[in-house]
Amino acid sequence: MTPVDSVHEIVLTGPVEPIPADRTPLVARFTQGATTVEVPGFWDGADRYLVRFSPGTEGDWSWSTRSAAPELHGVTGTFTAGPRTGPGGVAVSAVHHFAHADGTPFRPVGATAYNWLHQEEPIFSETVDALAEAGFNKFRYMVFPQAGGYVEHFPDLLPFERHADGRWDVSRPVVAFFRRLDDAVERLGARGIQSDVLILNAYDNGRFGLDGLTEEEDAAYLRYLVARLSASPFVWWSLCNEFDILDRPTARWNRLGELLASVDPHQRLRSIHQWMRFPDHNQPWVTHASIQNGAATTEFGRASLYRDAYPKPIVLDEIKYEGDIPDRWGHLSGRQLVHQFWVATVAGCYASHGESFVTPSGSLHMVEGGPFRGESPARLGFLRRILDDLVIPGLDPIDRWDDPAYVAGSPRRQYLQYLGQDAPEAWTFRLPQGNLGDRLEVGDAFEVDVIDTWNVTVTPVGRRFVLDDVQRNDAYAKGADPVPLPAGEAVALRITRVE
Amino acid sequence: MTPVDSVHEIVLTGPVEPIPADRTPLVARFTQGATTVEVPGFWDGADRYLVRFSPGTEGDWSWSTRSAAPELHGVTGTFTAGPRTGPGGVAVSAVHHFAHADGTPFRPVGATAYNWLHQEEPIFSETVDALAEAGFNKFRYMVFPQAGGYVEHFPDLLPFERHADGRWDVSRPVVAFFRRLDDAVERLGARGIQSDVLILNAYDNGRFGLDGLTEEEDAAYLRYLVARLSASPFVWWSLCNEFDILDRPTARWNRLGELLASVDPHQRLRSIHQWMRFPDHNQPWVTHASIQNGAATTEFGRASLYRDAYPKPIVLDEIKYEGDIPDRWGHLSGRQLVHQFWVATVAGCYASHGESFVTPSGSLHMVEGGPFRGESPARLGFLRRILDDLVIPGLDPIDRWDDPAYVAGSPRRQYLQYLGQDAPEAWTFRLPQGNLGDRLEVGDAFEVDVIDTWNVTVTPVGRRFVLDDVQRNDAYAKGADPVPLPAGEAVALRITRVE
Repeated sequence: MTPVDSVHEIVLTGPVEPIPADRTPLVARFTQGATTVEVPGFWDGADRYLVRFSPGTEGDWSWSTRSAAPELHGVTGTFTAGPRTGPGGVAVSAVHHFAHADGTPFRPVGATAYNWLHQEEPIFSETVDALAEAGFNKFRYMVFPQAGGYVEHFPDLLPFERHADGRWDVSRPVVAFFRRLDDAVERLGARGIQSDVLILNAYDNGRFGLDGLTEEEDAAYLRYLVARLSASPFVWWSLCNEFDILDRPTARWNRLGELLASVDPHQRLRSIHQWMRFPDHNQPWVTHASIQNGAATTEFGRASLYRDAYPKPIVLDEIKYEGDIPDRWGHLSGRQLVHQFWVATVAGCYASHGESFVTPSGSLHMVEGGPFRGESPARLGFLRRILDDLVIPGLDPIDRWDDPAYVAGSPRRQYLQYLGQDAPEAWTFRLPQGNLGDRLEVGDAFEVDVIDTWNVTVTPVGRRFVLDDVQRNDAYAKGADPVPLPAGEAVALRITRVE
Repeated sequence: MTPVDSVHEIVLTGPVEPIPADRTPLVARFTQGATTVEVPGFWDGADRYLVRFSPGTEGDWSWSTRSAAPELHGVTGTFTAGPRTGPGGVAVSAVHHFAHADGTPFRPVGATAYNWLHQEEPIFSETVDALAEAGFNKFRYMVFPQAGGYVEHFPDLLPFERHADGRWDVSRPVVAFFRRLDDAVERLGARGIQSDVLILNAYDNGRFGLDGLTEEEDAAYLRYLVARLSASPFVWWSLCNEFDILDRPTARWNRLGELLASVDPHQRLRSIHQWMRFPDHNQPWVTHASIQNGAATTEFGRASLYRDAYPKPIVLDEIKYEGDIPDRWGHLSGRQLVHQFWVATVAGCYASHGESFVTPSGSLHMVEGGPFRGESPARLGFLRRILDDLVIPGLDPIDRWDDPAYVAGSPRRQYLQYLGQDAPEAWTFRLPQGNLGDRLEVGDAFEVDVIDTWNVTVTPVGRRFVLDDVQRNDAYAKGADPVPLPAGEAVALRITRVE
């Protein structure tokens, strides 16, 4: 019995002479009552063909195949989807946020090691351990290998066979390569980490020539990747990191994104990430905005402007790196990076971590992975726990553009306020009203927790704050004493309505 | 002879029984060589029908009409377009900027009086004088009258006749009403002011019922408005101010915008302005983003984020008001509003002014117009002169997201840096390199002007600054002495390459 939202795999025997993998070898139609899902199959070496499907509902499913190959045509079967054993894949929820298929909110706290997939042991496994132990729940890495700066390892295992003329032959994927990718996704998933799979990369620099595929070849590869991986509840798609480094027409990227949206039977999350030129994240195929801009998180009141433009989740997937290299993108202190995550959080956005200390190989963690050296991961794991403990779907700026305190939350339910890196001696209770949603009323009662974001402590204030002065734009508990704070620390406040 | 980019009007006599104005009574096809432009005509009272066309090129044009009415069908004529007498209409130029048809950059410094069109004399004319004398070059006002707060005057002249049941009859426009609008556009245009025409309004509150037209009625009105006004080189279109106050599906607004784009033969600028919920300014019909968000201009590094999301001009058409009413949107000091304009300027964006001092009638200037009372208009006229004196198409942030000084301009040509409201004693020459465009080189020479944005002075430093230290991200003239500044004043620097 396959649990709901996990992978049901069908193994079929096809022609001895493999069907070129640049066409879909078969399609399986899964049916339960009025629900029908068409799932592309894929070649898995020799005469082996697979179909991977993730049932979204419990109960009996039947399936039948169609194919131009007689061996793969008209095969039928049934299976039963049982109770879920995990929360399921992640989708957009509450406009600017995410939730698993079972409704559990998913608050991404991302990590990055672009070339990780291509590393040997022990780095490969150490990376998974380090991510899981720190508490990251999303990880960006590339399918194709990297050949840019700080790359010290070039893999032997590559994704395709070659034509006689040396060009890549996307009709002949290297199965061992893609099984390694399957395994990577599963191993991360088993540790609670979503794979933000970077489909193409802009860092080939002609070394592998994988940036020289034609649009048709890119499409064939994309279809193969989707058929292979999309049933996994641990997969997100990103067309490319810094896509605009490649000299390609925007329309070609958009067509690739539209193709992805049209062929993915499981509709995993989709985005694309830029260097200098933003894609149009309002395109329907884009589920969330994946953005590079460190400066959007260095001050309050910035990242939230992206929410104005894009009514989708905003994930600041590149906000510079904790490290000590001379490049200005690679020498944030741990404190600064953690600060920027909290600024992003109260802007109603999400962010991703990366580390740019030089590793023993001469590379960077953000390239190859491995154990963390920085101070931020432990604090970001703490941030993730704070986010997971929220009782609301997500944090939205309450009084968008007008709140000098940048309080985020859900009106009249729960709030998070971040005081920055240098807290004052005390905080006086005050909440913004905002223009949308429930309005605060006299008598509303709140509890407050003082969160030390660097020293990773949560300290309940231990008394109730009852609103006694509710104005048009703000509400106060004037009868309550101020809350003493650990002055000079990077402090946040969690304010939860209890009555 | 009609000058290029001005209105050539054809007067025709049609049926005595007027053609209902909710259909286009005739179309005139204008031809010059391979160029053909189809221009809708419109009813102008009794048996009078007009076609207004603005020729974009000099020389002989011929035209012929088609119409379901025999009187208006098959009429032909010719005219000669002569040399231009003005710079022509405004269009998008250099991605985030504007230029007139003759190539002259247009840098909007906007003003606002929503209900001005509906005022009596002397306010009506005083407003035009006040705008022109201050130096504003764009003016936002509504076609339909306002019935929201601070409205003290309700007009007798309204845009349509009524059906017997009291509903508005958009097939019978009140010609005197629209002639008044024609006149308003022309009078402003003659003073160098573009009309940012707010087609619908969200402040009817049921008083006039003009917010209760059906989608088809809105469309008929829009077509009439376009036929009547679009030949004027002084017209911009805005579908609505704070459109999302009205309870209408987004798709209806988008259809109206698409209709506007499809029916306007002169392709005047088009946008829509929001209260809390942004429209998708990346839609093809939107030529520029018209945005309400004061906070985007209170600090550096914010408004430019809208440029990331929208590769179009960003016009911050509502950034709060200079005035003294209690509402938090209406009590900026003149200094603060001028400061915000300069912050918007170096963010590569444009802004609009409004004044919320209470007028003798009990209204506000931003509602009815009239003479200015505030301190900002004179300084904004000065800003406009600074912008008009630039030798570059527009100001773009040079080192987008990474420049602590927020220098804008065009690489290796000209720069503007705004130091904020409280200048230091001196400034040391330094320019950012940025990631795009020409790179600075040792030996490049610059002249610097010190601009006092509040005291409206421009003081040349009177010496040259020659780059002697060019680094990856910044360039310096280390051999040059610092520039003394009027400390404590709101100072900007204009830095122009001379060699």
